Order: sequence, then structure tokens, then C-alpha cells
Amino acid sequence: MSVAFRELHRPGDPLLLPNAWDYGSAAMLARQGFAAIGTTSLGVAAVHGKPDAAGTTEAETVALARAVRDLGVLVTVDVEGGFSDDPAQVSELVATLSRLGVVGVNLEDGRADGTLRPVEAHQAIIEAAKGHGVFVNARTDTRWLGTGDTFERVRAYGHADGIFVPGLSDLDEIARLVESTPLPVNVLYQPGGATLAELAAAGVARVSTGSLLYRASLRGALAALPGVTGEPGLPSYADIADMLPKP
Amino acid sequence: MSVAFRELHRPGDPLLLPNAWDYGSAAMLARQGFAAIGTTSLGVAAVHGKPDAAGTTEAETVALARAVRDLGVLVTVDVEGGFSDDPAQVSELVATLSRLGVVGVNLEDGRADGTLRPVEAHQAIIEAAKGHGVFVNARTDTRWLGTGDTFERVRAYGHADGIFVPGLSDLDEIARLVESTPLPVNVLYQPGGATLAELAAAGVARVSTGSLLYRASLRGALAALPGVTGEPGLPSYADIADMLPKP
Repeated sequence: MSVAFRELHRPGDPLLLPNAWDYGSAAMLARQGFAAIGTTSLGVAAVHGKPDAAGTTEAETVALARAVRDLGVLVTVDVEGGFSDDPAQVSELVATLSRLGVVGVNLEDGRADGTLRPVEAHQAIIEAAKGHGVFVNARTDTRWLGTGDTFERVRAYGHADGIFVPGLSDLDEIARLVESTPLPVNVLYQPGGATLAELAAAGVARVSTGSLLYRASLRGALAALPGVTGEPGLPSYADIADMLPKP
Repeated sequence: MSVAFRELHRPGDPLLLPNAWDYGSAAMLARQGFAAIGTTSLGVAAVHGKPDAAGTTEAETVALARAVRDLGVLVTVDVEGGFSDDPAQVSELVATLSRLGVVGVNLEDGRADGTLRPVEAHQAIIEAAKGHGVFVNARTDTRWLGTGDTFERVRAYGHADGIFVPGLSDLDEIARLVESTPLPVNVLYQPGGATLAELAAAGVARVSTGSLLYRASLRGALAALPGVTGEPGLPSYADIADMLPKP
């Protein structure tokens, strides 16, 4: 286990974790002085013209981990659902990433068809990811997919090192979730939503930016086109996914 | 030769050509309705963590051409100096790109060590790129590198399909260059510099954005970081190159 990375998860004083999608964005974030960065599977999928969350970007994800290993920043990798339903393959992937110096992985239970992986199956995937010295962040997509019981899933993933619930935004509910588990809780930063201070007060231990910075990068490029005045809107996750090949 | 792409080069009514660096940026630009897009070697290098203009991104450049071929937009590719000094290899590369549907290439005479390729050598590279039905844009880096005679280089590359002089910004000089050659002239768009209308009036036939949109994408990402207020500065070419491995 990367002790340094684990120790950055302080309930009430969360780690702000920005997510990169390529070498350039990772290098830029490292230069900003972040102690750790994550990756975003949407961004990696978009860079390479593949669908997100469909299990098709394992090679590109590993290549990104390899490319950024000398940047002097801790790196945790979004591996979607592990790119496999076979625990042995997930274990092998996490071992590979660990050898590349990766300190953490996110493993999501949401699937491309909008359903959740069965609880026992995702428990086995989480278990398979352990033992490689890597912080295993168990992500449940109950909120994003609008299905399943968040608290039940969080309980079921108690053998992970951290819990991530994207789409959770109500501060009272976040506080209740934090109370319900001994694990550090990770939520997504949402522009216009709760502030970092509010999320800290709710007991959150990690705030990640998910696909936000990638989406903002495309907005930034559009805004620089000759003849464009004013700021273009921030593309949504769906806007980006819609540009990509379908699973 | 892609007649459609050639015909977009109208002196006095230039093609505005935005440059992409990955599938996502290309897809976004295609959705904006651009008839054609280019690629930027700086962007491709940054995405993959390699130095720019050092001849090391041939595989990534071809992969990008392959990834974007179904976007329904004409694509011209920045192939640096051709990734080789051997005309036969450059011919093979352009043939490969042509088979992927690419309609143009940029071939630069600037080298990683800050010198220009000898005139005769670059003439041979340009000649080798011809015959594959691809618009060959001959780029001279006299201005960027501050060495050599621009007008002499432009004359020497008269067998190309177009001429590109990045770093040329004085409107009178642009007009003189346009007068000096029968080929369509391409210049870089520079924020705060000449407007598209001014460049049109000077007789320019193509205005490309080079690395601008990639650099602006990183600015856009930085601006979206939680806690950042105001707009971060636009990174320069040197700022990005400085983040990349050295040649």
C-alpha cells in the first residue's frame, strides 16, 4: 500500500484530486503542485476515439500510466470496471499498474448497459485488486445509473480502501454516508455545486474532478477559435460520449 | 489529389483550418462544421509524452489519422519533417496516410537542432510526398528558427502544392510573399495579431491554428480547477515543449 497516498485521504480535509487524460494534462497538473492526480476514463476514451465505460481502453490506460510514471506525482488510475469480469485478469492488471508505480485504482460497478454488476461479483473484483500495494477505491454507480441501494453497496465494499460515489451531491446525504462507513469517502466536484469547504465539512476525504477538466479543455479550445466571442458552454458527459463510437 | 481540399484554398478568402491533437478534439471540430481540419505535432507529442519536432511520433500520428478517418471531415496531417530524411520512407508514409483517407500533409524544413534541412534535401522530401493524391504543404521554418531566406525557400519549394510560413506576421510581408509565388500561402493565426479579414486581404489562402487550440485546451482545463478564479494565461509553445521529454 502506498502509505503516502493513503495518508492524503483525511476526512474533513479532503485530497483534491484532478483527473488527467493524457501526458500533457498530467504534466500540467503535476506542475501545478498537486501531490496526486487521477485519470479519467472518459478522457482516455475520447483521446483514442473509443466508447467510455465499455471495457475497451485497457491498453490505452496502461500506456498512460506508463507515460506519466516519471512526472514525480502520485497517480491513481480509473480502470472502469477492471476491463474484465474475471478477478484473475483484474488482479493481473492491477499488478501491472503497480509495477508502473501507480498508487491507486478506481473500480466501478456500473456497466455499459446501465445496470450494476452484481454485488458479489464486484466484491470479488475488489478483492482481486488488493494485495498489490495499490489503494483500491470502490466506486458505486447507484446514483449515476439511478439504480440500486447506495448504502448497501458501500457496506458491501467494506474490504476496499476507499469508497467513491459519483453523483452524490446532497451534503446531508454525504455526511450520512461518511458516518456509515469507516472508509474514506470520495465524491465528485461539480461546478456550481457544493464547495470544497462544504464537502470537507461533510467529512469527505477525497474530491475528484472526474471528466470535468477534460470537458473544460475542449471548451477552452473552442473558445480560442478565431471569431469565437464569449465563452462556449461546458460540454456535458453526454455531449462527449455522443461524439464517441458507441459500445 | 483531393480536388475538394485543394479548392478550399482561395487566395483572399482563406480556408480557416483548426488543428486537432486527438480523436476528441477532431470530433469536436468536425461537429463545429469545419470542412477540413489539420493536426498539430506539438499536440500529438504532448498527448503521448514525446518531444515535438524530433521525429519520434510517426506511429502516434498515423494512429490519429486512422482514428479520425470516419469523422466526415477532410484531414491534413502535420508530419513534422516526414519522420525521416530518406525520401523513400517519406513516400511510404504519405502513401499510408493517403490510404487512410488523409487529403494533405505538412512537411517542415526545420530540425530539432534549430537548423534548416538543406534546400535540396527538403526539395527531395517534398518530391517524395507527391504522387499519392495528397496536398503537399511545404513549410519553411525560416522565421521560427530565425535562419535562412524565406523567399528563397519558398521559391525552392515551388513543386509543392502549397507554402506555409509559420511566424510570418507582418501583413505587407505576407502580401509580398503571396505575390512572389503561384502557390497558395498558409500562415498561422495568432491571437492578438492580424485578423482573418486582414490576412484575407493580404492574399492568404489558408490560416491554420497550429498548436493554439491545444494550448488553449490546457488553459481551459486549468481554469476549471476548483478554487481557480480568473483566466489562467495561455501557455506558449515553449511552455508546452518544456513539459515534454527532451529530444
